Amino acid sequence: MKIAFVQIYPEFGQIEKNVNRAIAFMQSMPADIYVLPELFATGYVFESRAELMSLAEPAESGFTAVTLGQFARANNAGIVYGFPEKAPDGLFNSCAFVDGINRPVVYRKLHLFYKEKQLFDPGNTRLKIVHFREARLGMMICFDWIFPEVARRLALMGAQVICHPVNLVMPYCQNAMTTRSIENRVFTITANRIGVENRGGLECRFTGQSQVTDCKGNVLYCASSDKEETFVADINVVDADDKNINELNNIWEDRRIDFLEPGDR
Amino acid sequence: MKIAFVQIYPEFGQIEKNVNRAIAFMQSMPADIYVLPELFATGYVFESRAELMSLAEPAESGFTAVTLGQFARANNAGIVYGFPEKAPDGLFNSCAFVDGINRPVVYRKLHLFYKEKQLFDPGNTRLKIVHFREARLGMMICFDWIFPEVARRLALMGAQVICHPVNLVMPYCQNAMTTRSIENRVFTITANRIGVENRGGLECRFTGQSQVTDCKGNVLYCASSDKEETFVADINVVDADDKNINELNNIWEDRRIDFLEPGDR
Repeated sequence: MKIAFVQIYPEFGQIEKNVNRAIAFMQSMPADIYVLPELFATGYVFESRAELMSLAEPAESGFTAVTLGQFARANNAGIVYGFPEKAPDGLFNSCAFVDGINRPVVYRKLHLFYKEKQLFDPGNTRLKIVHFREARLGMMICFDWIFPEVARRLALMGAQVICHPVNLVMPYCQNAMTTRSIENRVFTITANRIGVENRGGLECRFTGQSQVTDCKGNVLYCASSDKEETFVADINVVDADDKNINELNNIWEDRRIDFLEPGDR
Repeated sequence: MKIAFVQIYPEFGQIEKNVNRAIAFMQSMPADIYVLPELFATGYVFESRAELMSLAEPAESGFTAVTLGQFARANNAGIVYGFPEKAPDGLFNSCAFVDGINRPVVYRKLHLFYKEKQLFDPGNTRLKIVHFREARLGMMICFDWIFPEVARRLALMGAQVICHPVNLVMPYCQNAMTTRSIENRVFTITANRIGVENRGGLECRFTGQSQVTDCKGNVLYCASSDKEETFVADINVVDADDKNINELNNIWEDRRIDFLEPGDR
């Protein structure tokens, strides 16, 4: 199965332009599953909740969802992408999986980073698994990476590939994702953006280096920090179902949860 | 507070010689807390449980415990070291903290690696915190590193420094320990051995690279892969009590355990 990330430089607020730009990249690189960055169509540095609200979209009927859904259906693909979600119960930093056939599957970021807390509502959806053809996909967003419980839960729920839209500004995540792979024996695909946004007194420099790891923690590819690019990895998702490290160790069977505390979840 | 590891090449079965060798290294490098490798005084590749039994020691009255305790007391230090523990309820791959004043605090490895399963009994003690002067120390042994729950639990219990005796033969752990530091904001000190043991048809090449990380995941030092050496880091253990990443994010307060499952522990 071919999984690809798209690393782009979004133009702030230009949803239509950014969606079409992402589609052009996807068209250039046939794949089964694409992962786009967090908030890839809007940009990241919103000056106010009002501005964010003006750029947020409903998960099913928004321009981004509909347009990506059409592309996915026409190309027999699935797409995981980040977007600001306008919902009856709040305004979320969300990602969705679309295939253009089924309803989008939405995950709302549980762990908001820094000033996102002043703009978004905290996620109120459970972690979930997307079944797409023979693959089981988990979704988490950016800062979720620092909490080992997130990737752990996704793996325990059966995720073979963790799809991870991000807008990273610090250098720690990519390396940690190799550990997320090793400790859970899952593939990970982290899609970051590049470029700078300087708005309302906050400057963010996004660090690129989008990355794919295999289920043993090997980095299959790590992108540049300053160029738009896509990469496709051809993987056997079922490799992630083998939790044996050797003939005597299995990471699920060996877990000594009997010696942890309920509060450790 | 000065924390040090001792990276040595033990001679198989020569307990007295190896203990004295470790002491010579410790004497050359004044510190408050020393971490020695897993099974540092016996070697690692036992040919049978009977051979292991002949080299195992009681946690309190064994030569290793008594000798290290005397050194610790004389030097106002604490020592964490790995040893095969002969106990009424089994034979364990254990580590202990000794200061020569209080009774040793013993942790029995929860996650046995590979053929250790054919020699040792699985650990049956809870993870615990050692209070030594102003520091709170957690202990885990080698392969425990791959289970994120172990370091997580120790950090949740208050560990500021994770003392980690190891006998590593693979290259993944050191890098993962930077993630254990970042995700828990704790110091880690991993004490590995070097050298080769080829006994009973099993050859193990130990990879050295003993390592200290600070509580933000920076590697303070990583040793060579093939030389005996010690390193001492001067750290402020209280830095690990600050769980803030920035003025809006705190890794404990931000944890969304409300969205995990009890089974995730």
